[in-house]
Amino acid sequence: MKCKICRDRAVISLPQHNLALCEEHFLARHARIVLDTVKKFRMFGPDDRVAVAVSGGKDSLGLLQILVAEGVSAFGVFIDLGLGEFQAMVNRAVEGFAIRFNAEVVRYSLAEHHGRSLPELVAGRKGQMPCSFCGTLKRYLMNRVALENGATVLATGHNLNDETAVLLANALRWDTPYLARQNIVLASTHPKLLRKVKPLAFLTEKETGAYALLRGIGFVRESCPYSQGARSLWFKRVMAEMEAHSPGTKLRFYKQFLRFRAEHLAREAEAAMRECESCGFPTTNPVCAFCRIVGEGQRP
Amino acid sequence: MKCKICRDRAVISLPQHNLALCEEHFLARHARIVLDTVKKFRMFGPDDRVAVAVSGGKDSLGLLQILVAEGVSAFGVFIDLGLGEFQAMVNRAVEGFAIRFNAEVVRYSLAEHHGRSLPELVAGRKGQMPCSFCGTLKRYLMNRVALENGATVLATGHNLNDETAVLLANALRWDTPYLARQNIVLASTHPKLLRKVKPLAFLTEKETGAYALLRGIGFVRESCPYSQGARSLWFKRVMAEMEAHSPGTKLRFYKQFLRFRAEHLAREAEAAMRECESCGFPTTNPVCAFCRIVGEGQRP
Repeated sequence: MKCKICRDRAVISLPQHNLALCEEHFLARHARIVLDTVKKFRMFGPDDRVAVAVSGGKDSLGLLQILVAEGVSAFGVFIDLGLGEFQAMVNRAVEGFAIRFNAEVVRYSLAEHHGRSLPELVAGRKGQMPCSFCGTLKRYLMNRVALENGATVLATGHNLNDETAVLLANALRWDTPYLARQNIVLASTHPKLLRKVKPLAFLTEKETGAYALLRGIGFVRESCPYSQGARSLWFKRVMAEMEAHSPGTKLRFYKQFLRFRAEHLAREAEAAMRECESCGFPTTNPVCAFCRIVGEGQRP
Repeated sequence: MKCKICRDRAVISLPQHNLALCEEHFLARHARIVLDTVKKFRMFGPDDRVAVAVSGGKDSLGLLQILVAEGVSAFGVFIDLGLGEFQAMVNRAVEGFAIRFNAEVVRYSLAEHHGRSLPELVAGRKGQMPCSFCGTLKRYLMNRVALENGATVLATGHNLNDETAVLLANALRWDTPYLARQNIVLASTHPKLLRKVKPLAFLTEKETGAYALLRGIGFVRESCPYSQGARSLWFKRVMAEMEAHSPGTKLRFYKQFLRFRAEHLAREAEAAMRECESCGFPTTNPVCAFCRIVGEGQRP
């Protein structure tokens, strides 16, 4: 297998693009796609300060590395939920990355700021799984910590596999509100809610994984020990099967959806935002989900 | 496995409904679902004369049997494309059905009325497959023959497997015109175009197959020797896999689509209909696809 550009030994083949590339040309192409996506969807410009929601995995660290290397004013936001041994491993990976790639990463500890780690929060509630809180906590904290550190936009590492798995699940239910809310750029609907952007949305896990490996990023390969993820993994498997049968399915599914959404679903009414009575951050309820979970909105 | 209603021996299990039924209760339920679907979607009423597009398979013959048994003014329309041995087998099955169930079936032969069978039509065109013409020919003739025999509505035997396979293919491309055109009732957009209805759309192949077998309908199990069908079979397989993983997926996918379509796609502009210069039947072109294929619109 030879690089389509220079005929050197290829390190990756991308059947959906009928393409094989050597390390140099793959790395260059990968960064270029990220930056083209940023530009095409006007995700951010030279005046923006970009927070990257960092998990310690290949996607978010790879994204932060690309933005930093490109001279974008970008920093990582990293939420420490206190998930025991796994957390320690993630923390080491993120710290190592920050030093190696000269990247600013803001670490925010749930336990230090709100008294209890995620496992401690969950322990007090019968029949609740950590995962059901994790998403809510991280979404809230990523936005808040990014904002409080001067970010004007929040970038996440969602890749094409993530996006199409969610899209398939939503499409199978033809769930209008969920479909309307899925987008490569989520506009800010409140001054305290950052615009969210997904610069990796056109790149597969295979591509983001290869990029991080080839760049020497020491990312965490293990999944969270609490992770259920079965449902999303199942949809990823179905998408992978369709992709194998017909390369390009995922990319077409997602790109065509963005067009369809803009045409037919963009006008779906957004829920009216108010400010949480406890923390002042945007919510659709009197007290936001974060404050309800950490118990900060329940004081009389 | 026992019948959920009478505790007799069950002959079929329907995991998507968490249901097992004996022969008697399965047959009764099956016919009731068909008639409920007809009623709910106002497919036809007592003043209608219903043509059923008959292929010789389990779905269309089962549907015609139910309507005839229910006293609906229904008849079969059956297109003989002249497909050799396979056609002879289909013709025998349809004739046998008509006698056994006292059903009126109008047979229309392509060769007798238009000079050439489908294989003969295809033989004159290099690189063309019979399948690419078959759909066009049958759609045209079913409508025309039904109309000329006094039908006010045309019912087809599309089942849930057929509908969801097409829907998945269309959804993966987010193909608005195709999605907008897929419905359980296709309204007439021209006086010479019958309303099309799909009374079996909520029933799986397993159900329509079991119904036909238990009713003693001698349907054709073989597929057409020309049938490519690989693409639609592939989508059926993917849907079957998702259904096995999560029973009820197909039914939810289709039912929710109908709601979504009504809400977001119903207003998609229909192509303007005109009358074919050759046959006078509705088309979007000066000469309709049928006349172009059989060569009746090409005379100077």
